Amino acid sequence: MTKPVPADVVSRLKSVLGEGGWSQDPERLAPKLVEWRGRWKGETPLLVIPRTTAEVAAVVGICAADEVAITPQGGNTGLVAGQIPQGEILLSTEKLRAVRDVDALDDVMVLEAGVTLFEAHQQAAAVGRRFTVGVASEGSCTVGGLISTNAGGTAVLRYGMMREQVLGIEAVLPNGEIWNGLKRLRKDNTGYDLKQLLIGAEGTLGIVTAAALKLHAPLASRAVAIVGLASPADAIQLLARAKDETGGAVEAFELMGRLGFALTVRNVPGLRDPLPTEHAWYVLIEIASGEPGAAEAALERLLAGALESGLIADAAVAQTQTQMKAFWHIREGHSAGQKPEGAVWKHDVSVPVSKIPDFIDQADAAIEKTFPGTRIVAFGHVGDGNVHYDVLKPQGGDDDAHDAAREAGARIVHDIAAGFHGSISAEHGLGAMKSAEALAYKDPVEVAALRAIRAALDPQRIMNPRVLF
Amino acid sequence: MTKPVPADVVSRLKSVLGEGGWSQDPERLAPKLVEWRGRWKGETPLLVIPRTTAEVAAVVGICAADEVAITPQGGNTGLVAGQIPQGEILLSTEKLRAVRDVDALDDVMVLEAGVTLFEAHQQAAAVGRRFTVGVASEGSCTVGGLISTNAGGTAVLRYGMMREQVLGIEAVLPNGEIWNGLKRLRKDNTGYDLKQLLIGAEGTLGIVTAAALKLHAPLASRAVAIVGLASPADAIQLLARAKDETGGAVEAFELMGRLGFALTVRNVPGLRDPLPTEHAWYVLIEIASGEPGAAEAALERLLAGALESGLIADAAVAQTQTQMKAFWHIREGHSAGQKPEGAVWKHDVSVPVSKIPDFIDQADAAIEKTFPGTRIVAFGHVGDGNVHYDVLKPQGGDDDAHDAAREAGARIVHDIAAGFHGSISAEHGLGAMKSAEALAYKDPVEVAALRAIRAALDPQRIMNPRVLF
Repeated sequence: MTKPVPADVVSRLKSVLGEGGWSQDPERLAPKLVEWRGRWKGETPLLVIPRTTAEVAAVVGICAADEVAITPQGGNTGLVAGQIPQGEILLSTEKLRAVRDVDALDDVMVLEAGVTLFEAHQQAAAVGRRFTVGVASEGSCTVGGLISTNAGGTAVLRYGMMREQVLGIEAVLPNGEIWNGLKRLRKDNTGYDLKQLLIGAEGTLGIVTAAALKLHAPLASRAVAIVGLASPADAIQLLARAKDETGGAVEAFELMGRLGFALTVRNVPGLRDPLPTEHAWYVLIEIASGEPGAAEAALERLLAGALESGLIADAAVAQTQTQMKAFWHIREGHSAGQKPEGAVWKHDVSVPVSKIPDFIDQADAAIEKTFPGTRIVAFGHVGDGNVHYDVLKPQGGDDDAHDAAREAGARIVHDIAAGFHGSISAEHGLGAMKSAEALAYKDPVEVAALRAIRAALDPQRIMNPRVLF
Repeated sequence: MTKPVPADVVSRLKSVLGEGGWSQDPERLAPKLVEWRGRWKGETPLLVIPRTTAEVAAVVGICAADEVAITPQGGNTGLVAGQIPQGEILLSTEKLRAVRDVDALDDVMVLEAGVTLFEAHQQAAAVGRRFTVGVASEGSCTVGGLISTNAGGTAVLRYGMMREQVLGIEAVLPNGEIWNGLKRLRKDNTGYDLKQLLIGAEGTLGIVTAAALKLHAPLASRAVAIVGLASPADAIQLLARAKDETGGAVEAFELMGRLGFALTVRNVPGLRDPLPTEHAWYVLIEIASGEPGAAEAALERLLAGALESGLIADAAVAQTQTQMKAFWHIREGHSAGQKPEGAVWKHDVSVPVSKIPDFIDQADAAIEKTFPGTRIVAFGHVGDGNVHYDVLKPQGGDDDAHDAAREAGARIVHDIAAGFHGSISAEHGLGAMKSAEALAYKDPVEVAALRAIRAALDPQRIMNPRVLF
């Protein structure tokens, strides 16, 4: 728990923000003090709700003067307890909602931190463009949070993480100064790229108040298939062949094991298995091209060749938009599909793409040995090397007992990922949940450098102090 | 000039590297002490040529212990005096030449810092892949230099700068410790992305010794045209239309003004104008697609529509590989084409893409007003907002007089770029040449942060001390 905030700091913050700019109302605060799954709860002496970048700077300035800590919060959709205060001032970006500019000629939009991803997509579509980051929480998650956590999602394979979508950033640094880094340049080699440091910093190096984001041109053709195959190794071969044959037109490549696939099709209303027989593994593949008809042609050719050579066992190509959505729904329903099965450990690891088969083999064996009867649901963005490796309790097993072994299970899975030079947090970040654990896996030389950088920019460690190193 | 290096440091460096690991032979040193155009000359008490990362660490450790400065050098192709020592120890990466791995399944290759870009392209091609960074100096420039300067080039529009091609870095930090950041992950959200800080740091935060680089799938079809049109504004409209219609398949989009085009066609042997009449402006456009035939179809459709609507005046599509190369040769010959014209000021600016026409208008007017009779050759990667804005001396004018006014001219051009929130160094970096000037254009809040970061990682400022802030 962070040290108590002096009463005069609270009153100075109230006075600089004025009515509507702060709250201590428990009902107003409640939804911001609990993580959305209910796994973490927090507290704060004061919620501040600045309306402008200048107000954010005023808040940080007052806090910096008295060494008072701040936890920034966007849409409160994080999964690793990075946004829940434990006694710090809670700064919400919810009123930083301006759309400052959307420009289809420059392929850029400038949005304030509190704009939701859903609105970002709408703004892009309004000028005939796309914003390519897509995550399930798009109705709530915000530009500031997406940047501060370097969000991933389903389109990383082709377009990269949030990091690659940011042209410029405006932020309030830990000393309360406003950094105007809202450039719209595709090229600018004039010193260290400071924005890269703030992206993924989980609010520890400053508060992002606005960003200039890249827009992309729409694509004329799009085709989706669900493929049945024998193993993750075959899936990786299919991915390589798909990239090779389509020249990078693979928009998504998602692996699903039989158990997760079957649970989803069974437990999520309205879904059905598009293939007539069962398969050990499945891939959802989406191809998209700027040329009309090219995606369909490329997918047909790829699947025909893979069937003929025995690399895949069967495939169903979506014939309509509705079918396309239904196929995606099977992949996206993987969390909902597991829910009726009770307690589950979730892991968000990444390894080099070619190591996915070995990772799954080794993790399966180790988990079965230590926790016999548990059931593995492995799925995810394997085109990026990212596996959501979920471990369900044994059939009919006890929820609490499974929950109690969560950390021991995580250590096994994370050790194996680390053995392949992988990551224990591919896209979710570290937050307060995984920061201590990450120290066991990071190069100490790197950790020392990261700590030196943080101390240089935030010597009092007032920005999200319980997060990262 | 940096303070003299103590004799015992020189002898300790010699002894740790052994024979072949250092040189003081003036003939051996000479080519490394002069910038390739002869514009800057330097000196050093000792050239060190480490063969391994461990030897680099030993060198930096010895220098750090005695506060001795180091200038790292790759292929010595830099344009801004970032690689020429002025009394520092000169560290060449020329013996760090190992190809540690090339993996087409993971789409990654791990190369040591001294590997040339030419060899990087060959290694990628040997496994049926492409490495997408392309610059004119590929025979000499090296992986370490490309990373340390965040190189740009002709394929940035589609694939991004060098920054976006790096998955992992191994480097020796200013304290002499080896950071093993050679990950091959597409996703890893576990703290600040330290490699992003080293990319483009021009050797001031450590010495890159190896890197894991992204490979891309080859493309099945490719089409190139040279287009004649009336103005940069029309070119920007054509670019927007091309991006729109091809869904991001525009591989290159290069603008050329009449003067530069005419000088190149006239002065470079073997070139000829592919269009029957003269035009005020030209665009070289290249479309590439993963689908066979799609690039040709998309380019034909784009040009037919643009001709019909009057957006462009004429176009020639390359019918053979030879013609494709000849078209590119006109663009690439722009430096050679100017040479017979005598003294020239070169500028490497960027502005938001939509501001290119205004930038060129204002810069032309201001330069003509202050330096009447000078001749503008404007060309470059306008798809990235990057203009190489060259100013030739007046016809028959004096070379020395023109050279003497170089800084005054740069200030005019850079002020106008800055007025559009542009950059004074889009892709060449700052080096010792532009670092002081850049201070006039950078946000002081940002400069303070960059200085704090540098001081945190290199408190003695021993790494390339005359470069950056």
